[in-house]
Amino acid sequence: MSEITSLVNKVREKQPLVHNITNQVVINYTANGLYAIGAAPVMANAVEEAADMANNADALLLNIGTLTTVQVDAMILAGKAANQKGIPVVFDPVGVGATPYRSAMAKKILDNVQVSVVRGNAAEVGLLAGLKAVMRGVDAEAQGDHQAVALQATKQLGIPVIVTGEHDVITDGSKVFVIENGHPLLTKVTGTGCLLSSVVAAFLAAHENVLEACAGAVGFYGVAAEVAASHTSAPGTFQVAFLDALYHVNSDVVTDTIKLTERFIEEVETK
Amino acid sequence: MSEITSLVNKVREKQPLVHNITNQVVINYTANGLYAIGAAPVMANAVEEAADMANNADALLLNIGTLTTVQVDAMILAGKAANQKGIPVVFDPVGVGATPYRSAMAKKILDNVQVSVVRGNAAEVGLLAGLKAVMRGVDAEAQGDHQAVALQATKQLGIPVIVTGEHDVITDGSKVFVIENGHPLLTKVTGTGCLLSSVVAAFLAAHENVLEACAGAVGFYGVAAEVAASHTSAPGTFQVAFLDALYHVNSDVVTDTIKLTERFIEEVETK
Amino acid sequence: MSEITSLVNKVREKQPLVHNITNQVVINYTANGLYAIGAAPVMANAVEEAADMANNADALLLNIGTLTTVQVDAMILAGKAANQKGIPVVFDPVGVGATPYRSAMAKKILDNVQVSVVRGNAAEVGLLAGLKAVMRGVDAEAQGDHQAVALQATKQLGIPVIVTGEHDVITDGSKVFVIENGHPLLTKVTGTGCLLSSVVAAFLAAHENVLEACAGAVGFYGVAAEVAASHTSAPGTFQVAFLDALYHVNSDVVTDTIKLTERFIEEVETK
Repeated sequence: MSEITSLVNKVREKQPLVHNITNQVVINYTANGLYAIGAAPVMANAVEEAADMANNADALLLNIGTLTTVQVDAMILAGKAANQKGIPVVFDPVGVGATPYRSAMAKKILDNVQVSVVRGNAAEVGLLAGLKAVMRGVDAEAQGDHQAVALQATKQLGIPVIVTGEHDVITDGSKVFVIENGHPLLTKVTGTGCLLSSVVAAFLAAHENVLEACAGAVGFYGVAAEVAASHTSAPGTFQVAFLDALYHVNSDVVTDTIKLTERFIEEVETK
Repeated sequence: MSEITSLVNKVREKQPLVHNITNQVVINYTANGLYAIGAAPVMANAVEEAADMANNADALLLNIGTLTTVQVDAMILAGKAANQKGIPVVFDPVGVGATPYRSAMAKKILDNVQVSVVRGNAAEVGLLAGLKAVMRGVDAEAQGDHQAVALQATKQLGIPVIVTGEHDVITDGSKVFVIENGHPLLTKVTGTGCLLSSVVAAFLAAHENVLEACAGAVGFYGVAAEVAASHTSAPGTFQVAFLDALYHVNSDVVTDTIKLTERFIEEVETK
Repeated sequence: MSEITSLVNKVREKQPLVHNITNQVVINYTANGLYAIGAAPVMANAVEEAADMANNADALLLNIGTLTTVQVDAMILAGKAANQKGIPVVFDPVGVGATPYRSAMAKKILDNVQVSVVRGNAAEVGLLAGLKAVMRGVDAEAQGDHQAVALQATKQLGIPVIVTGEHDVITDGSKVFVIENGHPLLTKVTGTGCLLSSVVAAFLAAHENVLEACAGAVGFYGVAAEVAASHTSAPGTFQVAFLDALYHVNSDVVTDTIKLTERFIEEVETK
């Protein structure tokens, strides 16, 4: 666990270059958040350079929040370059299931790119994996539901998943991390989920073990949100304080504050 | 009037989903502003999903600030879907008249989509309605000019209009609301006009009477600006404080602070 | 020098309209920064209106941060209109050299548009000018290196250049201004370099002497960063405080704080 809580140090030391093909809404906040944690962001959407830019990078983030067909083409070119180079690829299936087009494009990305981790809320991750039945329980924020969605989705997709919500669940099907940090104000600022996906990409670039890197990113992020929320009760100032916290929070604060549970699937299944 | 000043409660209760096809400059601030008032934003520009996304929504906002031809196509698809579903559509003709292209695209939108309300400054609303002569008086912020522009524009367009400026005028040609809230710092932050249009969309989704919903949105917004400006005299901190105020200001504060005048057209015309 | 330090007054008096064709990451911060200094921003990317919008403006800013081929087409149309009208054009070659596409597009812009000033970091300005050899020293922030890059680049390009970094160098090949203001937090907020390029455009619109306008813009900007950094040590609050400082800092503060050195090339070359 000290390994996990200190991963932010590795990120700040390596200063990984994270190539983001992401949506227009969050592109600025994502860049600022990556700078704040000590990573280096680059954004480049053009099909003519997406692969070259991914080839310069230490990790790739694909986010379909305001997708277009040409942007998805760029994602696939970048994703294939990232796969060839062997750098991690995080996929954030924003709003998948909301429209047939969005679902088709998400499938196209998964069909063409080897994704290291999928990060979304329970509805997004579940729908991406085709788990329609499970979705009835999505609005309930019970930990059990999130865990069930995450476990079924990772099995269906064959990819480790991060399901975020009131509790965050990280699993590759054989191990589960549950993190109970964060703050409701995160849901009042646009792009906090999207930025987390980019932060996960930065942590993956700095630490080889995928589940540990994910847990390190999600735990650090949730702790930073709690630190930011201790200074404010409104979303405007929270948005600013959160960037400050991403910059200031160190591994000691993470170690003191993280609420991380680690389980193996046998244990989970017998519950 | 208590109906109007309490409409923010209905918005916070309903949490309407507002689909925004808007410009790149303000897309983030718009999303954060909608979250702050208790609504739910969604942004989706692709022609392949614009109609489907509008069909999920409770209101639609169309804003041509950084328009492209394909984005206007998406707006028309979304607008037609919104019309078919019967949800309100707000049109913000940013910079109409600045270029022939922008004017042509604005006309194309109005020709294809049944718009519930147009929101802009006096120049934009006047030019959209083809009122070239009136435009000479646009720079003057006298209430009379705004009212004249608004009344002529609503008559010409056959659509209720909101003309914002030092005073805000809301009219459908038979009734006029004048609101004298707000703060000059609003003009020093990009996207405050655009966000207001999205806030109007959220209020329309929560309250059927169009003019009342518009007055409720504009009044609430102006009061929130005054609350924010009481904490700062510079635009960076104002931008943040304004999001906080949109989150915190409640109907009591609106009731205590709103400067709303209601007139019928007969009265106006005899002035 | 009092001429240079008081140029912000001329900007605030003229309120120049700056047309920006810039990247998605910084488009909001650029608009807010231009408002803060007292200029008026307009953003319009569509090829159908780029020329018309430039023709309305007092200055043009071209930034290739998230370029696409159609956006570059719009830049060239706007650039040619700006040249014909005789308004200044600032070119910010973000990330040039990072991919072959980006380099080719930057060259295409320079081949088609008469640029008044290029602004970038030492790597960008050097690579734009084809100075591969010099680039080995780019990471070192020594003033000598920046000056060498700037002098060689301006000679190669035939355009005045601004090389920003720990020290900022402004030169047209016959005169050099070195400015030693600014703050490291500027490197932790995305778009501060891009915004500076737009601020330079605003200063060029308000003052005919190119090198003086550049020095005035860069000096004012660096002083504002120092003022902002005196209030905070983290990037979220710095980003906000910087907009406030751009709004509040006046020529007296600039005069008291600027660290400006002026040299003629003979002197530089004999060092």
